[in-house]
Amino acid sequence: MSIGKLKIEAIFITYPMEKNLDAFFNPKTVAVIGASADAGKVGHIIFKNFAEEGFAGKVYPVNPHPAPVLGHKPVKSVLEIPEEVDLAVIVTPAKTVPKILAECGQKKVKSVVIISSGFKEIGKEGAKLENQLKELTQKYRLSVIGPNCLGVYDTNTEVDTLFLPAYRMGRPQKGNVAFVTQSGAFGSVILDWAAQEGFGVSKFVSYGNAVDVDEIDLMNYLHKDEGTKVIVMYLEGANRAKELISAGREISKSKPILCLKAGSSMRGMQATQSHTGSLAGADEIYSAAFKQAGIIRVANIEEMFDYSRALATQPPMPGNKIAIITDGGGFGVMATDYAEQNGLSVQEISEQTKKKMMKCTLPFATLKNPVDLTGSASGAMYRCSIEACMQDQNIDGLLVILLFQPPNIESDVVQHVIELRAKYKKPMVVCSAGGQYTEIHRDILERSGIPTYPTPDRAIKALAILNKYAQIKSRKA
Amino acid sequence: MSIGKLKIEAIFITYPMEKNLDAFFNPKTVAVIGASADAGKVGHIIFKNFAEEGFAGKVYPVNPHPAPVLGHKPVKSVLEIPEEVDLAVIVTPAKTVPKILAECGQKKVKSVVIISSGFKEIGKEGAKLENQLKELTQKYRLSVIGPNCLGVYDTNTEVDTLFLPAYRMGRPQKGNVAFVTQSGAFGSVILDWAAQEGFGVSKFVSYGNAVDVDEIDLMNYLHKDEGTKVIVMYLEGANRAKELISAGREISKSKPILCLKAGSSMRGMQATQSHTGSLAGADEIYSAAFKQAGIIRVANIEEMFDYSRALATQPPMPGNKIAIITDGGGFGVMATDYAEQNGLSVQEISEQTKKKMMKCTLPFATLKNPVDLTGSASGAMYRCSIEACMQDQNIDGLLVILLFQPPNIESDVVQHVIELRAKYKKPMVVCSAGGQYTEIHRDILERSGIPTYPTPDRAIKALAILNKYAQIKSRKA
Repeated sequence: MSIGKLKIEAIFITYPMEKNLDAFFNPKTVAVIGASADAGKVGHIIFKNFAEEGFAGKVYPVNPHPAPVLGHKPVKSVLEIPEEVDLAVIVTPAKTVPKILAECGQKKVKSVVIISSGFKEIGKEGAKLENQLKELTQKYRLSVIGPNCLGVYDTNTEVDTLFLPAYRMGRPQKGNVAFVTQSGAFGSVILDWAAQEGFGVSKFVSYGNAVDVDEIDLMNYLHKDEGTKVIVMYLEGANRAKELISAGREISKSKPILCLKAGSSMRGMQATQSHTGSLAGADEIYSAAFKQAGIIRVANIEEMFDYSRALATQPPMPGNKIAIITDGGGFGVMATDYAEQNGLSVQEISEQTKKKMMKCTLPFATLKNPVDLTGSASGAMYRCSIEACMQDQNIDGLLVILLFQPPNIESDVVQHVIELRAKYKKPMVVCSAGGQYTEIHRDILERSGIPTYPTPDRAIKALAILNKYAQIKSRKA
Repeated sequence: MSIGKLKIEAIFITYPMEKNLDAFFNPKTVAVIGASADAGKVGHIIFKNFAEEGFAGKVYPVNPHPAPVLGHKPVKSVLEIPEEVDLAVIVTPAKTVPKILAECGQKKVKSVVIISSGFKEIGKEGAKLENQLKELTQKYRLSVIGPNCLGVYDTNTEVDTLFLPAYRMGRPQKGNVAFVTQSGAFGSVILDWAAQEGFGVSKFVSYGNAVDVDEIDLMNYLHKDEGTKVIVMYLEGANRAKELISAGREISKSKPILCLKAGSSMRGMQATQSHTGSLAGADEIYSAAFKQAGIIRVANIEEMFDYSRALATQPPMPGNKIAIITDGGGFGVMATDYAEQNGLSVQEISEQTKKKMMKCTLPFATLKNPVDLTGSASGAMYRCSIEACMQDQNIDGLLVILLFQPPNIESDVVQHVIELRAKYKKPMVVCSAGGQYTEIHRDILERSGIPTYPTPDRAIKALAILNKYAQIKSRKA
């Protein structure tokens, strides 16, 4: 079953019936099994997330000890809950989990998240316990996420099984990017970072050892999720390679999928075995599989965020001809270098478009491509140059470099950029680098759906991804 | 003279007598020619920098108009100044500059910065004017930086010829990294960014069209500057290729030199011609020349800052064997991948060192390499593991991954890291990613001279550069 042994086939394979994962993200009744009165405990934090934050449903603490949890009297077992349970979250010690999972099965709980660790990842004894979970899941036809995971965070329904308090790990705002991660620690960093950066997330799932629900089930679910525009995955190893490819091929026609695959080096592969206990396969095979699946492989966390932002806000870019407009010559030169390195073309701008620009720019501006408005550029010069390029059929996308250090640039330029992006549907990204004055404007642009990068290479690479996704989207079959 | 035509020779070439540039950075008497009473004008801002900020010397406004500048009565010409002038800063329109420069020659001004633009970069007419400057410089044996530049900023003497107000472009704090840039706009972004990030700078020079002083003169000067530990350059084209190589070979024995070279693509080369009017040569030739010179070429701005911070605070790393210590498995795996990609070795840790670590870590921690202390790691576990690796002769450097999201990590870990770095002289970098709670600790680490990166690839690449510089430093002849 390991992808290492997989012969990649170009044929389309139908995959097994999709699981309905809706109860994980939109439950009406939740049981937190192991909910604790002790404020430092994981079971307390998770219960509190449901009981005292934005979650609109009902939540039951489950604990054999009778001490009330935040004023709620616990029931002894999930079996005592007098109504249907949509989601059970289990946070008890590993050895107690099989019995509890069986009770969830008897209760016909629709979905179960097992946060607890101490399974496959700790060795033989844990693997035995994990096998019991697998058997119970099949016996009772349960839907299970975990064990050894952070579980689910949904910015819309505010389902939040994350056991880390908000001061340690922020919760991101609503958005249209979904994150799916095998590693919990990786997930916690991503959430914290996204929250800090004002990066919008739709759904987040850390699925850990994947006793049942895995990345393919989640991809298929997110495919149909209206709130998700981009799917981002962190993967160490995949067990269902063929399904990954076929699901990717289908989904990538309508939604871009990004994947950060760790464990590519020999030594890194060994490390994943101690970590999630999954077998990582030869790296080249993954690359080939991703390519066939239309999954965009990213090299690092920065690319993951950078590309997500572009894909979540900009249309795909079918052609590769871009215009670069700048008020700093050096940045324009660098952007041109990076464009060539990333397969984008910075062609001479047409005479007609140049003429339009000439009317509103300075006599010593350079109107070739990159268009250098010089350090004397004003917002009005940017407006007219951007509009001329937006109207040019020979230009597929724009990189607007906005350096706010020169003296004539004022805040109006930000408004121009936002208005023109709304008026024309052409892909556009901004590069803006510097200190606080820059940050203020960068934030406004970002909040208005204009992806803004601090360096020209990151901006160019984001444009190149819009081109790459257009190619994936237009593939036949 | 263009590097494009240069046949690279492995022989050591003596270069012409070095210029004494001390008057640029440490003048006692300064004349600002074109100093203006109008607060919006460049000549006002620069005069104010000298008159009202930290500069300890004397400053004269020079302007034919008698209106006082910030209460100082201007003299009509530099010739009227009753004492020796160490530094003249010229900010008047291009066509007036030759006459003014001649007056500086007659006055035997020790150093001249020409901020004014409108020379070679605007075409033929400007090139003619620039030739006049060149002739005058030779005739009067002047030392000239510029024209078409930002000039000089020295964090120690507070010489500040930057005409951008601080709210637009911050001034960085004192430090030991010197920046030399051909592009002014690039320089302004770098300064603003450095100020924002708390990045310490010794000297900054934007030298523009380089009618006289060029990057080689500046490299040679900074070689002997005690306050500078790392030299960073932004270059579009170099005219004195042989000298660049020989100066680099000499300087890199004692100080690392980083260079961001723009204009590497065909289209980018054309763009540099409109920008600074310099001829950029074939990119491969530059790469070969840099290699021979011991100059480390960086691919982008991020690498430039990342590598500077490592080289400014950590010793060179003669071997390539590193230990990775982490509290997040996924980050450990990724770091291991990046290590292999960047020529670093993540070998199994010796039994002796493992035994030391076993005494103070959790039974389910992984003590191979990467060392995964797991999400249950405490500061004490980090302390003991780091110390064990510091004492291990088979480990050349450390990457400490500190994720602050897990619940048991407290602020004490930062103190441990700082103390151990001071106690042992081994290179160490930290990777720490997340939101505000992380930022607080990252800042403390950075201020204590521990380079701290948000992603594992950036941290690994910084360690790899410490290894690369050790190799450059140990080259023969």
